[in-house]
Amino acid sequence: MTGDVKHFRCEVQNRVATIALDRPDRKNPLTFDSYAELRDWFRDLVYVDDVDAVVFASNGGNFSSGGDVHDIICPLTRMNMKQLLAFTRMTGDLVKAMVNCGKPVIAAIDGVCVGAGAIIAMASDLRIATPQAKCAFLFTRVGLAGCDMGACAILPRIIGQGRAAELLYTGRSMSADEGFAWGFYNNLVEADQLDGAAQDMARRIAAGPNFAHMMTKTMLAQEWSMSIEQAIEAEAQAQAICMQTGDFERAYNAFVAKEKPDFMGD
Amino acid sequence: MTGDVKHFRCEVQNRVATIALDRPDRKNPLTFDSYAELRDWFRDLVYVDDVDAVVFASNGGNFSSGGDVHDIICPLTRMNMKQLLAFTRMTGDLVKAMVNCGKPVIAAIDGVCVGAGAIIAMASDLRIATPQAKCAFLFTRVGLAGCDMGACAILPRIIGQGRAAELLYTGRSMSADEGFAWGFYNNLVEADQLDGAAQDMARRIAAGPNFAHMMTKTMLAQEWSMSIEQAIEAEAQAQAICMQTGDFERAYNAFVAKEKPDFMGD
Amino acid sequence: MTGDVKHFRCEVQNRVATIALDRPDRKNPLTFDSYAELRDWFRDLVYVDDVDAVVFASNGGNFSSGGDVHDIICPLTRMNMKQLLAFTRMTGDLVKAMVNCGKPVIAAIDGVCVGAGAIIAMASDLRIATPQAKCAFLFTRVGLAGCDMGACAILPRIIGQGRAAELLYTGRSMSADEGFAWGFYNNLVEADQLDGAAQDMARRIAAGPNFAHMMTKTMLAQEWSMSIEQAIEAEAQAQAICMQTGDFERAYNAFVAKEKPDFMGD
Repeated sequence: MTGDVKHFRCEVQNRVATIALDRPDRKNPLTFDSYAELRDWFRDLVYVDDVDAVVFASNGGNFSSGGDVHDIICPLTRMNMKQLLAFTRMTGDLVKAMVNCGKPVIAAIDGVCVGAGAIIAMASDLRIATPQAKCAFLFTRVGLAGCDMGACAILPRIIGQGRAAELLYTGRSMSADEGFAWGFYNNLVEADQLDGAAQDMARRIAAGPNFAHMMTKTMLAQEWSMSIEQAIEAEAQAQAICMQTGDFERAYNAFVAKEKPDFMGD
Repeated sequence: MTGDVKHFRCEVQNRVATIALDRPDRKNPLTFDSYAELRDWFRDLVYVDDVDAVVFASNGGNFSSGGDVHDIICPLTRMNMKQLLAFTRMTGDLVKAMVNCGKPVIAAIDGVCVGAGAIIAMASDLRIATPQAKCAFLFTRVGLAGCDMGACAILPRIIGQGRAAELLYTGRSMSADEGFAWGFYNNLVEADQLDGAAQDMARRIAAGPNFAHMMTKTMLAQEWSMSIEQAIEAEAQAQAICMQTGDFERAYNAFVAKEKPDFMGD
Repeated sequence: MTGDVKHFRCEVQNRVATIALDRPDRKNPLTFDSYAELRDWFRDLVYVDDVDAVVFASNGGNFSSGGDVHDIICPLTRMNMKQLLAFTRMTGDLVKAMVNCGKPVIAAIDGVCVGAGAIIAMASDLRIATPQAKCAFLFTRVGLAGCDMGACAILPRIIGQGRAAELLYTGRSMSADEGFAWGFYNNLVEADQLDGAAQDMARRIAAGPNFAHMMTKTMLAQEWSMSIEQAIEAEAQAQAICMQTGDFERAYNAFVAKEKPDFMGD
């Protein structure tokens, strides 16, 4: 997962993959290349056995400034509809790939986190931020709609419909305190503790049970538009599957032996 | 949009329509006439080109006392099922018309905001209130269910399922502080600043990009019951459409020229 | 509703049924027997005329420790898929039965409230807790997924998607203060006031209008996966039904007579 990566940083340690956009001098904008490579990387992640959690990190004090004005916005103003739809589907495919990758993704957000950067934060499972985090869904500022890469569906489920509407209509920054109070951020830490806090959270999750975590992630997305009755039946099936894993038995045996379970991921 | 209005107040200024119920001596109850006229007004708004945002204002220190006891409740107790369903569909049609009108609606809430008044606040896109705002979904107090005009679907998405359940079962008032903490109100301001704050918010939104705002509003409602995958595809299409607007190009050109964009709404 | 109950405590007073798990020395774990009996009890409740609200109480300072390790977890590790699915469907059927029982359920939570105990709290309509309440969806600690009995669908709608994801991936305790701030708990009270506060809330709700409360409960679940348009039409029908009840007329007559309405439930 690290060897072929060209357009963003990627390291794997302790079964945790840490990735980050890598143009810190320009606050880490996304380009056509990094979009496509991130999409492919998250798609491949489904089949990777030595990574159990992902940290999407900040770099140089910022998370991401979103789509690059010169690399992306300028060409978009000159495209025909076929090309535009190919682009918006590619960006949407990144969110789909993150949602479907089977491993929890933790965004570690410092400084600027706007546009497609805010979307990547939103599409992660958990978010830790610094007091300096400034998150803005600023599509409206560039003449576009708030409905970008799933924002009108996903953001309301995280922070509520009224707050999401305000952020999407105005493009204004959500402060770190607002983000924490509204449930967008799971935790706030000082900037020099951000990487450590994200790694710590990732390692604790990667300690397993990872087959079960994959199922939790799957169902958190899968049940989105189900009725309550359908969701309960879907979970009866999903949890019955998990009850046939070795990790379930390992947990029981460890409990009886008064030990901490050692999860193996199967 | 102002000439023919008989049963509520209506003014248009700076591309912002400001409307208010207009029986302040009785805290602005709704009547059969004002319900129907509001429904028709919001339906017509879709085709109006010189209004880009709506302020639903308070009047005389109160937002609305809901359905008038003498004009509405009394006749309802004597109707047959065909007539009752015609009435509940008309009230529901007002919410549908607000949701589908294509322009952001900002409710400015002072004092009493109960029953159908609370529903109108809920069905707005954004809500600004004063510390004196008392919002109650008090259908249960008049012997009815909380499922009125979409409340069991919409209110949980704004403030969460548990808080919505309490308000709908008990009919109790939500205080201004609760409403702000829970994400029902986007902002609290003193009573003498309420109109100014609502107009300011409306003007900033009406400054555009208004085609994109219309699309944001459409998708915030449209994706409600979609799966994540469906929502992302729907946004890929909606945003691609927005990328062919002049406003998108105007924003890019203004950025390059280091100017503020002048959105035209197409 | 009280006579045949063997595996939990059950009392009916003032049209309020109060139930509690009853092994306080072991923090009230669930067993195969109590699961099945609770499921059947909530199913029967639909047809019971002298109960209008339910309090699911704590017992001996704790709500519930969830599925018993010896009675439930141990046998589960030895079951085949047919047996496992029968079990997970039975536990899911308890949540379905609570959701469909037609009477508001108020959970009164003190001390330990974990695993299936946390699910019962989540599946209730309202939740009152003490500062000592420790609620954990700790399935991950026993090697299982967070998708248990509807948690991945229901918990995000109460506290938001990001907070729910954290609780379900980590299995960590939600403190009483967090639970209140996040909308999981409707109220916090001291331990010696918990029973009183829950009974008070239940009696106020059971004072009616109970046909309308049943409809509110039905629609809060029923509209879950509807579009906004479908939900509004569904509520037009549901509320029209309620407008033909005697309680609606009683409320109107009481209003005219400047009296408090005496609801009869029909």
